[in-house]
Amino acid sequence: MDRTIEQQEDTQNGSGTKRNSSSTTDFDSVERIFESKKVPPWRNQLTLRAFLVSFILGILFTFIVMKLNLTTGIIPSLNVSAGLLGFFFVKTWTKFLDKSGMLNQPFTRQENTVIQTCVVATSGIAFSGGFGTYLFGMSDIIAKQSNEANEDLNTKNPSLGWMIAFLFVVSFLGLFSVVPLRKIMIVDFKLIYPSGTATAHLINSFHTPQGAKLAKKQVRTLGKFFSFSFLWGFFQWFFTGGDDCGFANFPTLGLKAFENKFYFDFSATYVGVGMICPYLINVSLLVGAILSWGIMWPLINEKKGDWYPADLPSSSLHGLQGYRVFIGIAMILGDGLYNFIKVLGHTLFGLYHQFTQDKTKADPITGNSSPDLPSLSYDDQKRTRLFLKDQIPTWIAIAGYLTIAIASVVTLPHIFHQLKWYYIAAIYVFAPALAFCNAYGCGLTDWSLASTYGKLAIFVIGAWAGGSNGGVLAGLAACGVMMNIVSTASDLSQDFKTGYMTLASPRSMFVSQVIGTAMGCIISPCVFWLFYNAFDDLGIPGSEYPAPYALIYRNMAILGVEGFSTLPRKCLTLCYIFFAFAIAVNGVRDMLGKNRARFIPIPMAMAIPFYIGGYFAIDMCVGSLILFIWSKVNKAKAAAFGPAVASGLICGDGIWTLPSSILALAGVNPPICMKFLSRSTNVKVDKWLSTHG
Amino acid sequence: MDRTIEQQEDTQNGSGTKRNSSSTTDFDSVERIFESKKVPPWRNQLTLRAFLVSFILGILFTFIVMKLNLTTGIIPSLNVSAGLLGFFFVKTWTKFLDKSGMLNQPFTRQENTVIQTCVVATSGIAFSGGFGTYLFGMSDIIAKQSNEANEDLNTKNPSLGWMIAFLFVVSFLGLFSVVPLRKIMIVDFKLIYPSGTATAHLINSFHTPQGAKLAKKQVRTLGKFFSFSFLWGFFQWFFTGGDDCGFANFPTLGLKAFENKFYFDFSATYVGVGMICPYLINVSLLVGAILSWGIMWPLINEKKGDWYPADLPSSSLHGLQGYRVFIGIAMILGDGLYNFIKVLGHTLFGLYHQFTQDKTKADPITGNSSPDLPSLSYDDQKRTRLFLKDQIPTWIAIAGYLTIAIASVVTLPHIFHQLKWYYIAAIYVFAPALAFCNAYGCGLTDWSLASTYGKLAIFVIGAWAGGSNGGVLAGLAACGVMMNIVSTASDLSQDFKTGYMTLASPRSMFVSQVIGTAMGCIISPCVFWLFYNAFDDLGIPGSEYPAPYALIYRNMAILGVEGFSTLPRKCLTLCYIFFAFAIAVNGVRDMLGKNRARFIPIPMAMAIPFYIGGYFAIDMCVGSLILFIWSKVNKAKAAAFGPAVASGLICGDGIWTLPSSILALAGVNPPICMKFLSRSTNVKVDKWLSTHG
Repeated sequence: MDRTIEQQEDTQNGSGTKRNSSSTTDFDSVERIFESKKVPPWRNQLTLRAFLVSFILGILFTFIVMKLNLTTGIIPSLNVSAGLLGFFFVKTWTKFLDKSGMLNQPFTRQENTVIQTCVVATSGIAFSGGFGTYLFGMSDIIAKQSNEANEDLNTKNPSLGWMIAFLFVVSFLGLFSVVPLRKIMIVDFKLIYPSGTATAHLINSFHTPQGAKLAKKQVRTLGKFFSFSFLWGFFQWFFTGGDDCGFANFPTLGLKAFENKFYFDFSATYVGVGMICPYLINVSLLVGAILSWGIMWPLINEKKGDWYPADLPSSSLHGLQGYRVFIGIAMILGDGLYNFIKVLGHTLFGLYHQFTQDKTKADPITGNSSPDLPSLSYDDQKRTRLFLKDQIPTWIAIAGYLTIAIASVVTLPHIFHQLKWYYIAAIYVFAPALAFCNAYGCGLTDWSLASTYGKLAIFVIGAWAGGSNGGVLAGLAACGVMMNIVSTASDLSQDFKTGYMTLASPRSMFVSQVIGTAMGCIISPCVFWLFYNAFDDLGIPGSEYPAPYALIYRNMAILGVEGFSTLPRKCLTLCYIFFAFAIAVNGVRDMLGKNRARFIPIPMAMAIPFYIGGYFAIDMCVGSLILFIWSKVNKAKAAAFGPAVASGLICGDGIWTLPSSILALAGVNPPICMKFLSRSTNVKVDKWLSTHG
Repeated sequence: MDRTIEQQEDTQNGSGTKRNSSSTTDFDSVERIFESKKVPPWRNQLTLRAFLVSFILGILFTFIVMKLNLTTGIIPSLNVSAGLLGFFFVKTWTKFLDKSGMLNQPFTRQENTVIQTCVVATSGIAFSGGFGTYLFGMSDIIAKQSNEANEDLNTKNPSLGWMIAFLFVVSFLGLFSVVPLRKIMIVDFKLIYPSGTATAHLINSFHTPQGAKLAKKQVRTLGKFFSFSFLWGFFQWFFTGGDDCGFANFPTLGLKAFENKFYFDFSATYVGVGMICPYLINVSLLVGAILSWGIMWPLINEKKGDWYPADLPSSSLHGLQGYRVFIGIAMILGDGLYNFIKVLGHTLFGLYHQFTQDKTKADPITGNSSPDLPSLSYDDQKRTRLFLKDQIPTWIAIAGYLTIAIASVVTLPHIFHQLKWYYIAAIYVFAPALAFCNAYGCGLTDWSLASTYGKLAIFVIGAWAGGSNGGVLAGLAACGVMMNIVSTASDLSQDFKTGYMTLASPRSMFVSQVIGTAMGCIISPCVFWLFYNAFDDLGIPGSEYPAPYALIYRNMAILGVEGFSTLPRKCLTLCYIFFAFAIAVNGVRDMLGKNRARFIPIPMAMAIPFYIGGYFAIDMCVGSLILFIWSKVNKAKAAAFGPAVASGLICGDGIWTLPSSILALAGVNPPICMKFLSRSTNVKVDKWLSTHG
């Protein structure tokens, strides 16, 4: 899973929802529409019903994110679904109460923002908790696959207790580090935060009468596809009574293509994800799949016995699997490095401009002209006034940060003996600066570089600790500490922007984020625990839940600690080539400009299928295709209902994993195996069955 | 396959197309709209392009009818598809010629009627040729299944030569027998011929500007679903590399239900057929399936070892299979007898009224008031004038009939030694009367009783010949002779009605029918021959093409010749019960009146799944369900485009059988087997595969 990918999707999604709400934003002022509606005081924005709904949706989205974590690691933005479903739940609730005359507080857009914020915070932990990356990468299951550093010192198996404790001590720091800076980011710098802005537009549009009508229709569409997707998941389940059975192993494009992981696997989730992701991402994935599984791996496979021993098990990292993993890592690191430097450059350049007050000129980076402060619009005046009304004292932020940091420094070494207290202290000294960088960069470009900062921590702390002292585990743990800080920092900044635009109080945003994070710290480990116990083959390559990034993260840690000794022959050369390739492609993309870059694939996206294969890329391209055709037939309808259909598909299939894992835990196995055999094998099996069956 | 079922669907289909063209018929006079258009002389109605298009469509529909013949025997009316596709082909053609300036004759509705007539005649032979019934019932494959009378004397395997010869000598008699009576039926009696009328409305509507626009849209819809259905058939093919493989064996409702033939088999054809057939037919099929495979057969199966020996092969007619076949036959005969008497009654009653000239009173049978002759409408005046303009001399009809009858009497005993010349002569003495009865009954009720007359011939001639003289074969051959006469007689009468209403000349209708029949006599045996050679398991129960009615017809012949000695224990009692049940249900249906009879299933339809199981009934109910939901969402659209969607589904899947059978002939086998195993079997297979695979 990679946050950068996720964030790219956020961008697209943002523009999608902007289109939806354009009917509202066409007006000169949004706030004049809402003028008659009183903004409730911040305490009243935090209602019990909001947190109840958030809790339910938090569980739903945690399931979805966890499933995505453990299957491919590609996570689309679920903001629209969260917004829609939150609106739907509370609206139903208030309507019901209204009818029975018991409604004492109407549903406001501030409350909707609170729900949205809380749900995103909760499900955010499912991502930053690293259940598909660093945290699961510590486990025995993954360690066994990498052949290196799999002694006890460098492994730690998941357990509910330490996971919850770990998340609680690391997840709140990001919040406190960004709180003092919110005025600078939102009011002074007027950063865009595309996702946050899009979400705000969505929520604002829901609460206009016209928008509410559209939202209702969207919810109905979402509900329909939710049911379809859930039932489809249920139906599929019956035919998975054994390994390699069922629709997920359907050799749609033939057996030969299936062997090379090219097939459509009928996953409603990834068709939905494909509908949300921009075409470019989907095409990049497919290009990556064809490049790797279609061309490179078959070619490397022919060098078997020459480049690497022919008698290795297929999962050994010293064989073909090694090329898959390390070339993928090289591309991810190359892309990450390029974007790190680019976003850092933007950040510094932007800061320079902010402080030289060169505001009359159009911003050369974003292409948006920074509005002049004196000529503030009615909306901005009203929003700024309300945003600055409810202050959060800076001393609370600093005290909070220090308290949690100390608690963390004391506690973490008890959880991970390999992670010395001074590593943690060192991270926490630099963390606020990095958190600010990430929040600022995210505000400019909508890209959160959380996972890149995490990888940085892996290499730095891993090398510092050294392999013999459990450097691999220390690196992975440090990655977790770092990722949680920078990821929550950018999330909260996005939420502040949303709150700013919906007149929600920063205080209620902050409280909502704290409560959401706390819920996430409990829900996410529990959901992961359910998966971990329900599915025996979690993390095994080729299984239903291969958790591809767990192995990738672990191998990055090994690489950081032990150098390149683990790589098979010629692999390092190939890694250098693809590292350079990733940087070059990014360079070309930036040189060509936005319009022509549309046709150049994104290296980060290309790298994902390198390890797990192209099947989900095909699903996602099917999603793209559906949306493309739909857009051709009826552009307006596709724009308005596409995200709802996609969300329905994702949510329905995602929530099906709940009953499915409960069935697995209860030992209820599916009754039928849908098997795919070649004709010749089938003849043999039939013969054998007729005598032994 | 049973013509009565087909005709029932004709009725429904007729009302469907009437709805389509209601915009046209709402006008007081159709002919005034067409006043400006000159009616071409009859020779010009018969264009080369019309027959070329008819030939292509004839092949298409022969494939479809043949496939239906050999899978379940349920054949929906393909008139709408034929009309639409004929219109589409010629319209494209004339448009192309018009653009290139080479069009010397515009496309008229008369020409459209000629195509329609020719295509129906061609594909009609695929039905009346008995490839799924009497003709295939003569073969070794079927004879082996029935355990009785399967010596050489009573079998005759299909061969291209004698099939074409047989069809040529028997198929034209019906045409000549009905020609002299056309004025009486159409002009004097003003019989309704619902299917013919509906087709005429459709063709008329196509040639109004507004109707042409709708027709174009319908054609586009048809084309879309045609492609989908064809590609779906193609996709399915890849997964059928072995027995019991592929989507057609998908245990959609679980393995237990699959064993009892309850599953959705993803057949686009039968989903389409379900959309065309009335809800009542589909529900009747399902009720029949539940009654037989859900209740009766499992109960009878428990008597194994008591009612019948337990060690019989499952296909033996002395075991459970016998109950399936004979109880089905009993119901079909019961229903047939009831309707034979009923329609004969109507015919005689109607004739009585016609001759007593009691025309001022409303017709007590059809409920339609017979229009008074003096007050003929403008339409009727014009139509009658043109209908009577081009005469076909009666002496030609009589001479033609006698010539062919003599040729037939001389030739047939050479094809079937068991069929003595005097049997044939006897049939031909009575045939014109029966042909008239059928044409008249069909004009009143839209029911053709061709297969009932055929069954009559089986019993009469079979008993006359006797078992030891090859009575079974003689009966089946006599059935063919009889069916061909009465079936073509009613078809041509329908066409005369269509021609009357579209101002097509009776001469061009007759010529078109003769040419169409001749094409059918060659195309149908060739298509059957292709199936026969391409698919090894043609006619085997449980295979892709079980040809259920072939065994049923053969067993009727055996029953006629040898009496009830072939039945297993208690089977005769059950047969009596279901024979009576069929009559009783029909009686109740008639007593309740049309409105309440909607809820009483039709015994004839119920009997079909008795032998082959309920899977196609489920497909058809899915089709019904789709149409039902569509009607709820958008009634007008469903009515206008439902038949087009259904036709597309049927035609696409039907034409896929052409490449599929060519692939089979070329020895190209599908590469993959999609297999369904129970979990426990799968474990065993996996274990075995890991050591032997």
